[in-house]
Amino acid sequence: MHNVYREIASWLEPLGVNVRIDAVGNFRALYPRDRKSDPRLLIGSHLDTVPNAGRYDGILGVVIAAALIEAWHGEKLPYAVELIGFSDEEGARFGVPFIGSRALVGRVDDDLLNSQDAAGTSAEQAIENFGLHPADIPDAGLHANVCGYLEFHVEQGPVLEQLALPLAAVEAIAGQTRMKFAFRGRANHAGTTPMHLRADAVAAAAEWITIVEKEANAHPEMVATVGSVIASPGAANVIAKEARVSLDVRHRTDDVRVGAVEKLTEQAKQICSRRRLSLNYSTLLNQPAVAMDPFLIEQIEIAIGASGCKPYRMVSGAGHDAMIMAEKVPAAMIFLRTPGGISHDPAEAVLAEDVAKAIECGMHLLHQLASEADFLKGTPRA
Amino acid sequence: MHNVYREIASWLEPLGVNVRIDAVGNFRALYPRDRKSDPRLLIGSHLDTVPNAGRYDGILGVVIAAALIEAWHGEKLPYAVELIGFSDEEGARFGVPFIGSRALVGRVDDDLLNSQDAAGTSAEQAIENFGLHPADIPDAGLHANVCGYLEFHVEQGPVLEQLALPLAAVEAIAGQTRMKFAFRGRANHAGTTPMHLRADAVAAAAEWITIVEKEANAHPEMVATVGSVIASPGAANVIAKEARVSLDVRHRTDDVRVGAVEKLTEQAKQICSRRRLSLNYSTLLNQPAVAMDPFLIEQIEIAIGASGCKPYRMVSGAGHDAMIMAEKVPAAMIFLRTPGGISHDPAEAVLAEDVAKAIECGMHLLHQLASEADFLKGTPRA
Repeated sequence: MHNVYREIASWLEPLGVNVRIDAVGNFRALYPRDRKSDPRLLIGSHLDTVPNAGRYDGILGVVIAAALIEAWHGEKLPYAVELIGFSDEEGARFGVPFIGSRALVGRVDDDLLNSQDAAGTSAEQAIENFGLHPADIPDAGLHANVCGYLEFHVEQGPVLEQLALPLAAVEAIAGQTRMKFAFRGRANHAGTTPMHLRADAVAAAAEWITIVEKEANAHPEMVATVGSVIASPGAANVIAKEARVSLDVRHRTDDVRVGAVEKLTEQAKQICSRRRLSLNYSTLLNQPAVAMDPFLIEQIEIAIGASGCKPYRMVSGAGHDAMIMAEKVPAAMIFLRTPGGISHDPAEAVLAEDVAKAIECGMHLLHQLASEADFLKGTPRA
Repeated sequence: MHNVYREIASWLEPLGVNVRIDAVGNFRALYPRDRKSDPRLLIGSHLDTVPNAGRYDGILGVVIAAALIEAWHGEKLPYAVELIGFSDEEGARFGVPFIGSRALVGRVDDDLLNSQDAAGTSAEQAIENFGLHPADIPDAGLHANVCGYLEFHVEQGPVLEQLALPLAAVEAIAGQTRMKFAFRGRANHAGTTPMHLRADAVAAAAEWITIVEKEANAHPEMVATVGSVIASPGAANVIAKEARVSLDVRHRTDDVRVGAVEKLTEQAKQICSRRRLSLNYSTLLNQPAVAMDPFLIEQIEIAIGASGCKPYRMVSGAGHDAMIMAEKVPAAMIFLRTPGGISHDPAEAVLAEDVAKAIECGMHLLHQLASEADFLKGTPRA
């Protein structure tokens, strides 16, 4: 067993859990161990992270789940808790994210298993090399009695810090479009080509980038980013022949996002037409927004309030396992404030008092759900 | 003797010239050979060009000078012509341009001689390796009787083609400012950072690049170019922390150019202040404009008209040896139309009929100057 599994198991086993590693490497602990036929609430997050990462992205949610089981120890509640530590959420190795949670909803397909890492090892081979059996992946699927999924996670953004709030209920995970655009003009001498005879790719791209920012600002909660700009040939005294730029647009409402992307594409065409450039573009990702479960969002807000904090709802701009789990069961997330909004970086931090509030909120939530018979009877969605 | 020297010498020697290679490798041919004490008109251009270049930049001006001597052969005029093929105008090897013409005006100094090429060979050593003697460089200086310098050159831009004119008189060589700017914000997650909490270096740089273009368009004949843009970290889903951009501004009037550069620098500061970014910038080049000689410009216009073409005056956005020669003697240039404005590229071209017009114009000019006693008596400027 890998060190991280052994460590978490060593916290939980004294409490009376049933620990197993499923066929894609998810850590799964059922508490109490003898309540297999009870309604089951899943609580977890991911164990992996990115290279050169911080100490909280993902694993904090697993640690909080373990802390809840510890705090709960000895109490009688009408459901079991299954703690999950997902094995691969980031997709750092195979370029495909959410491998762990996809196994729970039955979406580990051949494409995923055939994905290769930089060394040419397939995901399937890597699972075998780890001592697991890809043929058993169907056994990793959701248990029939699962009534919901809860995930505690660092916000990874600056919103809660700006509002001076420790916690928030996530009401949706934003949909996302990723595109690339190539503005193509003519390379020319920067000294001898008058302004009106240019087809300057950098000038065209710059005009468009200012429009991208304006479009995002015109829609509340939209974010739009041009993070990559590559100008060719890229010499100070040569008018650029080509500017290749990325576009990342996210919003909670798919129609709003898709409308903005269409408008921006149209604007890029118009700019190129007016400036006598050509335009190439393609869509790399077009992922719909995922709503969290309205009942669980409400319960989380009540629990946040019961912990002495001001309830707050927000949209997650980043993807999470809860987005995958929501395909099959009611799912929701609780965000913890991220100092400086810094994540995926060794400087990533959390405040100890925020973690204490998250555990307090989690305990209130577990008690609230104990009296929600309809929720506990819920069965996996089709 | 290098092949190019041998080739040009083989055209001229039958006409009765005195050929020599001066101490920086300039090809110099005096015609007629026995008229050393006469007033002397210099006609030439450069023999070098850039890597992966076209066939006309520079050498066309030397070939036209040779054609004029050939056409003139047998006529009696009250001055001699010294044909010059400058050895290094582009600065491709040592990073220092105008080595050939600097030798004529006495500006080959130790800094220039110590400049090294990519292999670590100094200019001084390269001159010795070529079989020349750096100690003789002062002998390459202008002869006391030189009354002026004329240079035929491809325009290297699209202006004459747009106007459907074969020739133009160059009235000035534009001054030039080159700067680099670094817009520095904060890298953040493109999904989790709301628009109002960003310090996006690409968005800031794009706003500024649009202003650069507007500023150039606000001043007739100004050109301003951002040819290089480097965004860091440059990932589609990360807000850029830094955008480094180049600026190249050129204009015939130094005050106008310097004023525009100051305004653009101020605008960059304001954009960074408003967006909570920091700004770093530095000036790499600040080169004043150089006027061509008014008398020679007039004479060129008359000669263009006498050749059946419409006289036209224009500013050169690129630097030329004439700019260096103008420090000491009346200097002027005649531009030939460049198809497509393409230069420094194998696709560089000229029209044969334009070259014929340039030679016709040159012959008119040589005859006109024969009756300008004041011009012929002119001595080198201090």
